[in-house]
Amino acid sequence: MIKTSHISERTIGRLSLYRRLLHQLQADEKVNVFSHEIAQLSGVTAAQVRRDLMAIGYSGSSVHGYDVYQLNDSISRFLDAPQIQNVALVGVGNLGQAVLTYLSGRRPKLSIVAAFDKNPVKVNRVINGCRCYPMNEFAAQVQQQKIEVGIIAVPGSEAQAVCDTMVASGIRGIVNFAPATLKTPTGVHVEVLDMAVSLEKAAYFARIG
Amino acid sequence: MIKTSHISERTIGRLSLYRRLLHQLQADEKVNVFSHEIAQLSGVTAAQVRRDLMAIGYSGSSVHGYDVYQLNDSISRFLDAPQIQNVALVGVGNLGQAVLTYLSGRRPKLSIVAAFDKNPVKVNRVINGCRCYPMNEFAAQVQQQKIEVGIIAVPGSEAQAVCDTMVASGIRGIVNFAPATLKTPTGVHVEVLDMAVSLEKAAYFARIG
Repeated sequence: MIKTSHISERTIGRLSLYRRLLHQLQADEKVNVFSHEIAQLSGVTAAQVRRDLMAIGYSGSSVHGYDVYQLNDSISRFLDAPQIQNVALVGVGNLGQAVLTYLSGRRPKLSIVAAFDKNPVKVNRVINGCRCYPMNEFAAQVQQQKIEVGIIAVPGSEAQAVCDTMVASGIRGIVNFAPATLKTPTGVHVEVLDMAVSLEKAAYFARIG
Repeated sequence: MIKTSHISERTIGRLSLYRRLLHQLQADEKVNVFSHEIAQLSGVTAAQVRRDLMAIGYSGSSVHGYDVYQLNDSISRFLDAPQIQNVALVGVGNLGQAVLTYLSGRRPKLSIVAAFDKNPVKVNRVINGCRCYPMNEFAAQVQQQKIEVGIIAVPGSEAQAVCDTMVASGIRGIVNFAPATLKTPTGVHVEVLDMAVSLEKAAYFARIG
């Protein structure tokens, strides 16, 4: 049996990348793929690819490489929940609406089932295909719809309060778009997508090299 | 003199975070701040904060801590170009438009001066305050407007071609929102903001812990 608790964050991120490449290879009707090909396409070493796949208990033939379909399937069984995991998004401004449109339907096993906003004009409407609720219904909706993942797309000054509400409601996985560093208890995982910091870094290295 | 070429990517990312915290502290009319306070707010150790600030040649008083205003100023002089750096965004779909709105004016020293799209309906219009050009004018606009940074917000299948065009036009700093792993020559810095991968990781850890 695989001890999933020992798989690192970085490995999970790479597995997610490999799967995306495998989807592309399947679309291109490729049947087999070597670790060095996956490595080249994802910008890591072939040894890293082999270690990551061994970590989830997969081993390919060294003669013909990995079977694209089977490998895709193995990674999916590892990464995805058996049932669909439900997601809530908080903050239905420009960014939140774009995230809603962008992420909806992009992963078959992840479904954004509820959006939340404090603006009374937005609540109790369907926005970009997703029902928008008032913030005070957050905990109730999380329980009722078995929501496990939260996306934060509010201004930085409101992000910690939203995060606290999520954690108090039992959410253990958060994607944070807000320009704020969140404090969370152990056992809560936060993925940071900080656009302003990324732009600043790119600008710095564009200049300095 | 500071050897800026030895400052790591991670340090640059943390300096950008520290500056955001210092802006908040200034807004709260705080005059001095200790490394351990910055550390706590940014989720790193106090020793790390002191190392990062020493790396840019800044040292505070150990009695009263750092002067908030001066430290902010020092980080800004380090991170920011003396003049405004111009930025181009490619892909004016839902996501690109949201990014345009979100990032516009967020950093005084970074200005998104041009957007590009292959859709003839979008080009030669002003979208969310930014002029949209056809892709075949990319190199000319980069040269004319001295654009140094590129943002990629096109579908995954088109991202590498856009990236190649950017690199060929002399851009050395790229923020990539597209679900694609980009190949770039040495000396080109790519910041990855992959929403689908982040959501998958958050979902995985929400489930496994």
